[in-house]
Amino acid sequence: MTTFHEQLEETADRVTVALDALIPRADGPESRVISAMRYAALGGGKRLRPFFALECGRLFDMDERSLLRAAAALECVHTYSLIHDDLPCMDDDDLRRGRPTVHKAYDEGTAVLAGDALLTLAFEILSHPDTHGAAHVRCELVSRLALASGARGMVGGQMIDLDAAEHDEADIHIVTRMQRMKTGALIAYAAEIGPVMARADEDDRQALAGFAHDLGLAYQIADDLLDAEGEAERVGKAVGKDTGLGKATFVSILGTEKAREQARMLAEQAKSHLDPFGSRAEALRDAVDFVLDRSN
Amino acid sequence: MTTFHEQLEETADRVTVALDALIPRADGPESRVISAMRYAALGGGKRLRPFFALECGRLFDMDERSLLRAAAALECVHTYSLIHDDLPCMDDDDLRRGRPTVHKAYDEGTAVLAGDALLTLAFEILSHPDTHGAAHVRCELVSRLALASGARGMVGGQMIDLDAAEHDEADIHIVTRMQRMKTGALIAYAAEIGPVMARADEDDRQALAGFAHDLGLAYQIADDLLDAEGEAERVGKAVGKDTGLGKATFVSILGTEKAREQARMLAEQAKSHLDPFGSRAEALRDAVDFVLDRSN
Repeated sequence: MTTFHEQLEETADRVTVALDALIPRADGPESRVISAMRYAALGGGKRLRPFFALECGRLFDMDERSLLRAAAALECVHTYSLIHDDLPCMDDDDLRRGRPTVHKAYDEGTAVLAGDALLTLAFEILSHPDTHGAAHVRCELVSRLALASGARGMVGGQMIDLDAAEHDEADIHIVTRMQRMKTGALIAYAAEIGPVMARADEDDRQALAGFAHDLGLAYQIADDLLDAEGEAERVGKAVGKDTGLGKATFVSILGTEKAREQARMLAEQAKSHLDPFGSRAEALRDAVDFVLDRSN
Repeated sequence: MTTFHEQLEETADRVTVALDALIPRADGPESRVISAMRYAALGGGKRLRPFFALECGRLFDMDERSLLRAAAALECVHTYSLIHDDLPCMDDDDLRRGRPTVHKAYDEGTAVLAGDALLTLAFEILSHPDTHGAAHVRCELVSRLALASGARGMVGGQMIDLDAAEHDEADIHIVTRMQRMKTGALIAYAAEIGPVMARADEDDRQALAGFAHDLGLAYQIADDLLDAEGEAERVGKAVGKDTGLGKATFVSILGTEKAREQARMLAEQAKSHLDPFGSRAEALRDAVDFVLDRSN
């Protein structure tokens, strides 16, 4: 029997293969930016968002190839956001997934451009007929990804995060809003792909939206716990940065114990949203535990 | 009778009004990035690309409102590219359209995010049903914009440009390829919007593609001439940068006179592609002269 970890790894491999096929080859005088895109997108990562996208899509028996393309597009956006967030003018990180960040391995200008090109590629992938036979479904996928990742979504969340370092009045409401936009919006999108492709009914959409909402918060709290307590080597990126920058996080506001309890409660709540899908949602439940375990 | 300059200004005003309505209002804790988006997108500019988009669309009697949305999306991409190109790690410019660049008026992190959000917004606008009633047309608009602005289009061109500063072997072929990608691809897209929306026949598409190709080159040569000879005050941005950086341009390779002659020839060629459209293409012909006059 396949364990959850094997399943996660196997999915990650398939996502990497899909990305490898979808990102252009590094040739021509512009090859430097493409090489940087490939370095960032093919250099590992747990591929958790694509995993959620694929598993949520399977609940509706959606075509694997379609789901994989949309999941790859989502991962392009996630990867671009990491490249730009790591820049010296943002979080200024040298290490990502255990390797030098893109601006360290290449240079800052190339990192900006590689991020731009990955974001752009996401929309190229989604709008292509191979992603779904119905053009209005493709348009909805484009539309929702743009909303999830723009100024009222991921980018807005990153802006609040950037500003927060300069204010010390951040409270739990600001931190929650920041998280919902910065991390939550893309996780919510992962859970929307399947329902959009399958034209699922409102009940199923709502169930998965609730799942993604609680999961997103649990995920961020787990991340904050890791940042506060993890060791750089194991985490694969710099830790203790938030504390160092005086940034408000769930951990700094709630304290370690309360934060861990909150994450546990959210994880349970996330799983309860999956009840209508019965045993078919087992991998998603395991994934929630996996997210939670990162902080334990 | 309306002169061409009045027509250009009137179009620019309408594009600005459209952008003002399409870019979110600056409120909430994320308002800083939205304020920066608005600063960049609403702060003037000739709106030449939207002008080409609107005039090419009029040849097919396309709906004004649809064209304006697509033209605004195109301008979002153009504006994002200027914000990122002006960054210290790229061209390092302090002045744009006669005002401080976004990273000067705000900060570098905000400038990166504002560019990201404008690029994302372009796809949100195009995929929205208000842009065109047929979803497959919207998908094609998304798809072509992504291709024009990604690693094999505008971003790739910027990469070549960035790299060129570090090589001195740039020749006319590299410079032409760089231009075609960096400036040409978006101008070509401007001329595609109308034909895509109108599902125009192959002859008309080819004619406008030829027009855009020659116009794009003429435009870049005019730009190089301005950089080599213009005064910062009149041009509204730093000039003489390319020479200072030892970058190969059409002017450095061909010399001023030959470059000017080449631009003139391309402009005539661009206009000849408009013959099939007769007097309806008059504004486009005037626009070609306008582009050429920038270098005279």
